[in-house]
Amino acid sequence: MEKIVSLQNGRVKTWKKLATKKGREQQQSYLLDGWHLVKEAIGAGTTLVSVMGTHEAWREYRDELPANLNAFEISDEVAKAIGDTVTPQGIFAEVKMPETSTTLPEVVHQPWVFLDAVQDPGNIGTIVRTADAAGFEGVVFGRGTADQFSPKVVRAMQGSQFHIKLVSEDLFSATRYFKRSGIEVYGTQLNPEAKNYRELKPKGAFGLIMGNEGNGMTPALGDVTTANLYIPILGQAESLNVAIAAGVLMFRLKEQ
Amino acid sequence: MEKIVSLQNGRVKTWKKLATKKGREQQQSYLLDGWHLVKEAIGAGTTLVSVMGTHEAWREYRDELPANLNAFEISDEVAKAIGDTVTPQGIFAEVKMPETSTTLPEVVHQPWVFLDAVQDPGNIGTIVRTADAAGFEGVVFGRGTADQFSPKVVRAMQGSQFHIKLVSEDLFSATRYFKRSGIEVYGTQLNPEAKNYRELKPKGAFGLIMGNEGNGMTPALGDVTTANLYIPILGQAESLNVAIAAGVLMFRLKEQ
Repeated sequence: MEKIVSLQNGRVKTWKKLATKKGREQQQSYLLDGWHLVKEAIGAGTTLVSVMGTHEAWREYRDELPANLNAFEISDEVAKAIGDTVTPQGIFAEVKMPETSTTLPEVVHQPWVFLDAVQDPGNIGTIVRTADAAGFEGVVFGRGTADQFSPKVVRAMQGSQFHIKLVSEDLFSATRYFKRSGIEVYGTQLNPEAKNYRELKPKGAFGLIMGNEGNGMTPALGDVTTANLYIPILGQAESLNVAIAAGVLMFRLKEQ
Repeated sequence: MEKIVSLQNGRVKTWKKLATKKGREQQQSYLLDGWHLVKEAIGAGTTLVSVMGTHEAWREYRDELPANLNAFEISDEVAKAIGDTVTPQGIFAEVKMPETSTTLPEVVHQPWVFLDAVQDPGNIGTIVRTADAAGFEGVVFGRGTADQFSPKVVRAMQGSQFHIKLVSEDLFSATRYFKRSGIEVYGTQLNPEAKNYRELKPKGAFGLIMGNEGNGMTPALGDVTTANLYIPILGQAESLNVAIAAGVLMFRLKEQ
């Protein structure tokens, strides 16, 4: 196995570039940091461009990895340089990005979340993970929403990108598409005159739009939705974190 | 107004120390970063030890601040040094920490969240903010839970520490106290044999224990609770983020 100890090594420079959107687009790949994510990628049959581990990591995980890997042993210093976390586990994989999909499924079976200019990578990743846990079918990344494969989004998704569909698409188009298929789309508004989410009992699939952290949902989207929902604030907080609001709504609205 | 431009200024050093638990305990105060938090503190009648603003911040906020402040004009460089954020708004306040309270109220009127060794400051702050929004009465910080007034917790609480009660107390003691008062306490477990949270309809007050991110709730606590709850995972995600789980449970279980 090739050993890489220098930060000046060309491969290290390439891996480091995967932390940027430009680098990911050039190489059409992104980085997984940590054993949980590498294991999820293998389980999902994702193409591993390469697997990088420290001496200790190889000793720990070699038996659980498939043969015929494009494998590298890296120094702790290299692991720190390419990893996103302060204390990396020492095991990484470079994996192919799925081709950017703007195609919603022909038949929508389960609910979807639509992200309208959601900015914080932690919020985005947590919403994807929660959508997976709540039995949703996928997440639409609308314009202005942060990149699907940035290190912080990938960390917060915890592998859920291998379980549910991620689609990049304009949310006006996605909303029209759902409604033409007879599927309702709900917006969300911090507006006590919107519909109380507890009064809704959807059957089967629907779309649920979550808005930007500071500005909420694009107002014009609210004109094309089936209804706009509101979570009543019972205390003195001004609002809910968008990932919390998404979690409350997903677990409430999904038919069980 | 005294102007402070040097990072070597003694006051600057003191303010920077508030980012550490030791510094906060020595000075019995903590730092608020940003206009929203400073405004909340004033609205709550909290003692402001000092207010620090850049030239621009003073021009913008002076009219909204009370007179008789211990006020300082600080340079942008000082603002960056004492602030927690990459792009500080340029307005800060040092405020007195409430005396560490281990006293639960004599009569519990509304539900409480108990934090059992929750580690991530963002999760802790978000849970406090969500408890506020959901109409909860307070949050008990159990042993091993990160500090109430670290910069990241304060940022994520978004001022909710001025709206609801925060108490530091051992969770076995808090659970016994609630149960002696006839109030039920629910644990949470990632265990399909625990009680499905949807089958519960509490009336009035209760306690809800949220566990550590990696290890969940301390097992021995589960033996002294009224019941232990489980959120069924419908997809392939292994678990929910603890703040999301707390949000789903708080909004579901709180009587409305």
